[in-house]
Amino acid sequence: MSALYVVGVDMGATNTAFGIVDARGTILFQDNIPTGNYSTGEEYAKVLSTAIKGLVTKNNLNGEIKAIGIGAPNGNMHAGAIENAVNISWANGIVVPLAKMITEETDLPCRLTNDANAAAFGEMVYGVAKGMKDFIMITLGTGVGSGIVANGSLVIGHDGMAGELGHMIVVRRNGRPCGCGRNGCLEAYASATGVARTAREYLELNPGRYSLLREIVHRPLTSKDVFEAAEKRDELAIEVFNFTGKILGETFCDFITFSSPQAIILFGGLSHASDYLLDPLQKAIDDNVMKAFAGKTRILLSQLKGAEAAILGASALAWE
Amino acid sequence: MSALYVVGVDMGATNTAFGIVDARGTILFQDNIPTGNYSTGEEYAKVLSTAIKGLVTKNNLNGEIKAIGIGAPNGNMHAGAIENAVNISWANGIVVPLAKMITEETDLPCRLTNDANAAAFGEMVYGVAKGMKDFIMITLGTGVGSGIVANGSLVIGHDGMAGELGHMIVVRRNGRPCGCGRNGCLEAYASATGVARTAREYLELNPGRYSLLREIVHRPLTSKDVFEAAEKRDELAIEVFNFTGKILGETFCDFITFSSPQAIILFGGLSHASDYLLDPLQKAIDDNVMKAFAGKTRILLSQLKGAEAAILGASALAWE
Repeated sequence: MSALYVVGVDMGATNTAFGIVDARGTILFQDNIPTGNYSTGEEYAKVLSTAIKGLVTKNNLNGEIKAIGIGAPNGNMHAGAIENAVNISWANGIVVPLAKMITEETDLPCRLTNDANAAAFGEMVYGVAKGMKDFIMITLGTGVGSGIVANGSLVIGHDGMAGELGHMIVVRRNGRPCGCGRNGCLEAYASATGVARTAREYLELNPGRYSLLREIVHRPLTSKDVFEAAEKRDELAIEVFNFTGKILGETFCDFITFSSPQAIILFGGLSHASDYLLDPLQKAIDDNVMKAFAGKTRILLSQLKGAEAAILGASALAWE
Repeated sequence: MSALYVVGVDMGATNTAFGIVDARGTILFQDNIPTGNYSTGEEYAKVLSTAIKGLVTKNNLNGEIKAIGIGAPNGNMHAGAIENAVNISWANGIVVPLAKMITEETDLPCRLTNDANAAAFGEMVYGVAKGMKDFIMITLGTGVGSGIVANGSLVIGHDGMAGELGHMIVVRRNGRPCGCGRNGCLEAYASATGVARTAREYLELNPGRYSLLREIVHRPLTSKDVFEAAEKRDELAIEVFNFTGKILGETFCDFITFSSPQAIILFGGLSHASDYLLDPLQKAIDDNVMKAFAGKTRILLSQLKGAEAAILGASALAWE
């Protein structure tokens, strides 16, 4: 009997969620384990493998699993390894060949890539990019990630690490510091933290200006606050999203110049603010894109919704 | 008997050179026709086909030609067409499906792409990129062109027109006007014309400063003048190349972030100034590249030298 299901593993810094997925992209069963409480990658691989085998056995699916796909921080698809993931104690500063370890424990093929690439696979297999051969996935979360598909294949570069579009330089002189140690990266502006920072700058630079956001004084401002203020028609909050959308749109013009994608797909927490981001983003593209590409690239929202999206994305890897 | 040769066609705005090439990349026979003296694309296709067939017959190679490859301005590989090439009267403002026309006239398969993509193919088949699956070709001539190879395939995008890296924005506010109608493109700085413009700016901004370039007063300054002055150790000319190399290096960091290529290969007239460009270019990469990619991408010079390089590049298309 041929294998009819795959396992998708969404590895976060604190929690690892995994599920058994069918060919239509339905998560039939799922479970999770902590990510961090281990002294070595081997130990984590054993606990995860045991948990996956347990879920498979419990549901009478032994022999029906085709492969395992993992979306992981700093995942290198060439190597099937997690490379220097600073937020995971057992992977900080070292290379952990997790895919191989999981295969040894489960006897199942295992593929691993980073979260954004997994999301791109998910969109291609189950979502809005079905049938597309050239598109870019942009994940707008705490950071900005990306998965680039060209000629129907993920662009992962000679080292397996390509597609870091959150670290394209958008402000070349006196740009904001970025978590990567450089300045002026897209991520420093267009991530959730970037949006919160833009809001703080707008408030500081315009001390006399009214905004609902001034009521938040006992804790740091978040992008969610800015979104909620925008929902209440707060003008400053709306301007923050205008600014963010404009930077995204200008940068997307450079992405289009590079790979001329059929679509750029927005994914992740901040894409929920699409009501405020999409108009300025589209306008910035229309105003700045090279004529040869005008009107050719669509801006779409991910169809992989909610908490299960990352499991689905990772599971899509396993069908290849 | 299987076909042992291909034909490469280098189509310029005024002259079209073509040659019969063997599998080692030796041009055995070549000829040329004017590009512009026709009222329609059909007429050009007929004259070119007749000339190719004539060269083949004259050298007793009938039945031994596998295919024809064409490198053309604004060549679209998907469509096998020249799209709105403003410098060619019979292709200005329209789409000319040249590959199909040539096949009809010669009964040989024909592939067509733009000049920079053809150069990338040439480098992959005969040159310094042999065996590489991920690299970027940058052509530094009157303009700046590019051919991007990822996963062993050319990145041409959903419309066949991708890889316009000369039109990445390098100066986002108050950038120089570019031929594409926008401002601040890489091409406006790092092309031969960009280098000449930088030199003129340096001379104007520093009126008291000595430079050999001040002796050129009866005609416009060219990048060749700047190169020759640099060869005579003219400090201002050397600074112009430092500036150009720095902009190239900073921009290459964004290219690396995108596709993490094993190499970026320089091709075209301006790459002859590599003695002056490469050091500042490499320094700008070392100073600005994202840590995850540090030291991974080599900067190489094309091995397809001289006037025959473009014919070789185009012929490489025909082996696929």
